[in-house]
Amino acid sequence: MTRTVYVNGTYLPEDQATVSIFDRGFLMADGVYEVTSVLDGKLIDFEGHIIRLHRSLDELDMAAPCTDDALLEMHRELVRLNGIDQGMIYLQVTRGNPGDRSFVFPDDSVTPTIVAFTQNIPNLADAPAARTGFKVISIPDIRWGRRDIKTVQLLYPSMAKMMAKKAGVDDSWMVQDGVVTEGTSNNAYIVKGNRIITRHLSSDILHGITRAAVLRFAAEAQFEVEERPFTVAEAQAADEAFSTAASIFVMPVVEIDGAAVGSGKPGPVATRLRELYLDEMRKAAI
Amino acid sequence: MTRTVYVNGTYLPEDQATVSIFDRGFLMADGVYEVTSVLDGKLIDFEGHIIRLHRSLDELDMAAPCTDDALLEMHRELVRLNGIDQGMIYLQVTRGNPGDRSFVFPDDSVTPTIVAFTQNIPNLADAPAARTGFKVISIPDIRWGRRDIKTVQLLYPSMAKMMAKKAGVDDSWMVQDGVVTEGTSNNAYIVKGNRIITRHLSSDILHGITRAAVLRFAAEAQFEVEERPFTVAEAQAADEAFSTAASIFVMPVVEIDGAAVGSGKPGPVATRLRELYLDEMRKAAI
Repeated sequence: MTRTVYVNGTYLPEDQATVSIFDRGFLMADGVYEVTSVLDGKLIDFEGHIIRLHRSLDELDMAAPCTDDALLEMHRELVRLNGIDQGMIYLQVTRGNPGDRSFVFPDDSVTPTIVAFTQNIPNLADAPAARTGFKVISIPDIRWGRRDIKTVQLLYPSMAKMMAKKAGVDDSWMVQDGVVTEGTSNNAYIVKGNRIITRHLSSDILHGITRAAVLRFAAEAQFEVEERPFTVAEAQAADEAFSTAASIFVMPVVEIDGAAVGSGKPGPVATRLRELYLDEMRKAAI
Repeated sequence: MTRTVYVNGTYLPEDQATVSIFDRGFLMADGVYEVTSVLDGKLIDFEGHIIRLHRSLDELDMAAPCTDDALLEMHRELVRLNGIDQGMIYLQVTRGNPGDRSFVFPDDSVTPTIVAFTQNIPNLADAPAARTGFKVISIPDIRWGRRDIKTVQLLYPSMAKMMAKKAGVDDSWMVQDGVVTEGTSNNAYIVKGNRIITRHLSSDILHGITRAAVLRFAAEAQFEVEERPFTVAEAQAADEAFSTAASIFVMPVVEIDGAAVGSGKPGPVATRLRELYLDEMRKAAI
């Protein structure tokens, strides 16, 4: 089936969905994005994603492309048009097409570009990977200094995913100044007894929407939450490790740089948090 | 006049020039570029740009989009079709359009996207700015760690240009660990007596094509060339400062963070290097 995608107010077949070569998203990576999961045909934590979208736009002095209601309506329409029961909706907003290339931002007459499309993933909630867990390698984090802004400057995360693939594992955890920042497109955690440890928020990591929800559910379930950096060695010696992101929810991490974490299998804490997250977010889905 | 631009083998009007929303250049900043200047309707240092293009592609495991001869032919055709006497040709190559979004590189069946367009700048060689010089501010360099690869991840350089504009100056020089890396889209130099000082090549800066030529001409003209980092304070206290790039050739820098450099006017060394560069490159243009 050909997907129906959204470009600047129009729903059209995916093979006709284009942007100008002068779009600043194409020439300058001057764009931000969000990925919202869909379960049971409903949007997971849409409000969280929209709040972060506005934060990204604000940090870059970029205008909002339309109202939040219009974004919600568009997301729902894409779900409907493409018959998505489980999957994702990718939304990208760029600074638009000024008609030529310049390092200087265009003036306000240039409107943002909005692009959105679905990805149909029938087993998103019951992902096989969640039953076996991710194996990861650690690599240097050489990304720019504003990882809190969710920009499309994803070349290094993409290279990092390829490094993982080449090493025969599922993902990379990035390390800076001796401590883990995050995964290629997810936040990183370790578990020690009843304590869940994850890096504190700063411009060094993405302020994960799934991270915020998982930490909230964890606290409600009487886990201790400690927000601080940790080393790869500490992670290897932990009881469990896991990653979170909108597209993987809570994903157990069972091996880091060849060393098994805990039992080398998904542990009870990650498994429980995944269940909690899915249950709660399904209830709140819109 | 509507520009004729080039997209994947086709010459077409600029307002019809598009790429897929699934192009990795748009979704992931997974692309590299070159800018070649045109003087007297001829290409300046085209070979240097093509060599660097191949280096960028190789570093990213990206295939060359076509032969070098085809790229030369396309550049010349764009000059001809658009009647460019002085200006620039922008060339961008991305990893292409896999038809969907994934952090994993597509397989070899996905061919690179090539986009190119001209910018007509009648007074490129006799730029008014070269007679007054650039004023710059210094800002932190927070870009990723592989600035030697000429990728389209230009959001921070673009933000840096806006910081300069807001400060009422022409450009920003970026500073890391207390020393200058480079300008927003140019290499940075200072002059002390007969000595020209510019940062050594590494992954911290772009390996400027204009830089290589200017340093060669400088050595031939009996200047001493010293490749090492320098501080903003050292630059402010220097006899002269300047920047080089394909689009500005040799541009005097007369003020840094509000402090005049030397006389506060374009100095004799920068002026002579600019003349030398333009003379020699015009002779060698193709």
